[in-house]
Amino acid sequence: MEIELLTLGQYSFVQNAFSFGFAVLAAATLFFWLMKSELAAEYRLAVTITGLVTAIAAYHYLSIMFSWNAAADITSGEVIATGKPFNQAYRYVDWLLTVPLLLIELILVMRLSKAETIKKSTTLGGAAALMIILGYPGEVSNVGGLRFVFWVLSMIPFVYIIYQLVVGLKESISQQPESVKNLIKISTYLVIGSWLFYPIVYLFPLVGLQGGAAITAVEIGYTIADIVAKAVFGLFIFVIAMRKSQALKEERATIEAAGDSDEMSTLS
Amino acid sequence: MEIELLTLGQYSFVQNAFSFGFAVLAAATLFFWLMKSELAAEYRLAVTITGLVTAIAAYHYLSIMFSWNAAADITSGEVIATGKPFNQAYRYVDWLLTVPLLLIELILVMRLSKAETIKKSTTLGGAAALMIILGYPGEVSNVGGLRFVFWVLSMIPFVYIIYQLVVGLKESISQQPESVKNLIKISTYLVIGSWLFYPIVYLFPLVGLQGGAAITAVEIGYTIADIVAKAVFGLFIFVIAMRKSQALKEERATIEAAGDSDEMSTLS
Repeated sequence: MEIELLTLGQYSFVQNAFSFGFAVLAAATLFFWLMKSELAAEYRLAVTITGLVTAIAAYHYLSIMFSWNAAADITSGEVIATGKPFNQAYRYVDWLLTVPLLLIELILVMRLSKAETIKKSTTLGGAAALMIILGYPGEVSNVGGLRFVFWVLSMIPFVYIIYQLVVGLKESISQQPESVKNLIKISTYLVIGSWLFYPIVYLFPLVGLQGGAAITAVEIGYTIADIVAKAVFGLFIFVIAMRKSQALKEERATIEAAGDSDEMSTLS
Repeated sequence: MEIELLTLGQYSFVQNAFSFGFAVLAAATLFFWLMKSELAAEYRLAVTITGLVTAIAAYHYLSIMFSWNAAADITSGEVIATGKPFNQAYRYVDWLLTVPLLLIELILVMRLSKAETIKKSTTLGGAAALMIILGYPGEVSNVGGLRFVFWVLSMIPFVYIIYQLVVGLKESISQQPESVKNLIKISTYLVIGSWLFYPIVYLFPLVGLQGGAAITAVEIGYTIADIVAKAVFGLFIFVIAMRKSQALKEERATIEAAGDSDEMSTLS
């Protein structure tokens, strides 16, 4: 990536987007963790992991921002490359950790049976990790053909994950309480919708999109996609956990009340 | 270590591995500490220490990454040594603290008798500290013979620890609940498996492996070994603590329910 292709306006816009990304992801993390104790014990693991995903992403946005700053010097209104490369790999390191975890959040908040939780977490999490690992060699390659080959390879687990989210989880989603059924469906669409951005951007260099405007579009697009897939998606997971916690508390209060009245009748 | 032997690709790969190591270890720490309150009181000490090990290691990975960055300048695609040495000692400082502690985690999560807990923690923790202390003079020595002498000295406590984990703990492991017996066995194998990497790498300079590829392999290998021995091993400790907590809670609920019905029959 040649950073000197950017105008000062474009360079600053991207820098501010990275700072915005960090702020949103860090704030989301604190929100999830501070609210965790308000949930029923059954949903605390899902929301802890939700915060873990945004925390890992916040760290990487900070690293990306620092790398962006170090890659250029601003001298009398112009963007001059310092020679230090902008480290794109931070994104892959981030995705390798966060993408499997955010699928696991979704599985955990659904509270499937133990066997199914382990099975779905392993297959979806594994497919997600494979998707990222297969994407990386193409990203760092300067050969167009290799970029395309790894794009195709990476799309195989990608399509599998979409299939699993849309078809594989259908049965489990139908058994969820009415109050959260739609929220879970929207969450799966959020994942799919935000993820579609990545394979499209990946192909930009192949079709010759490489100027300052293209670089700006890619970085802004990644930032929006990351915020949607992690913070917004995480907020849906949190609301689902909240609603299911409330239902559980009401249920338990009813059982307890019934138990109390039983005790009363025994005593009387 | 001559950092200018590395290509830009190798140098960046190692830097990204350090960043990845920091992210994993820091995320693991937060996870253990946030989930601690969900465990039975009996297992909170073990999981607190589990998080301490990953926290100490996360700090050292950050320091190692900063030292790696300071050791070289990237100018027009080349790795130029700045003259500041890459500080290998961070690893030893880290191990001196974390290696005894991670053996103590394992002892604590098993919940042996008080006397046995103290005895095993002291002997295993002490042997681990001795192993690290004996390794260091050889690591910083430029004399091949001295490197080998300290390797042999360091291997004595190393073999003693492996013997203790495989044979010494056999009796105690056999008394653990069925639901965690295998997890504990796997945890001991994780320690032994990941630790085997260290004495092998230690001998690399003696057999002349010192080029850019060798340096890269060593640093990547250490990072993987540290992640397995601390974060993955820690996750096993956490799952063991979680399962034993659940068993304990169920047991207590049964006793309470029995107590309630006793009360009922007394009242009626």
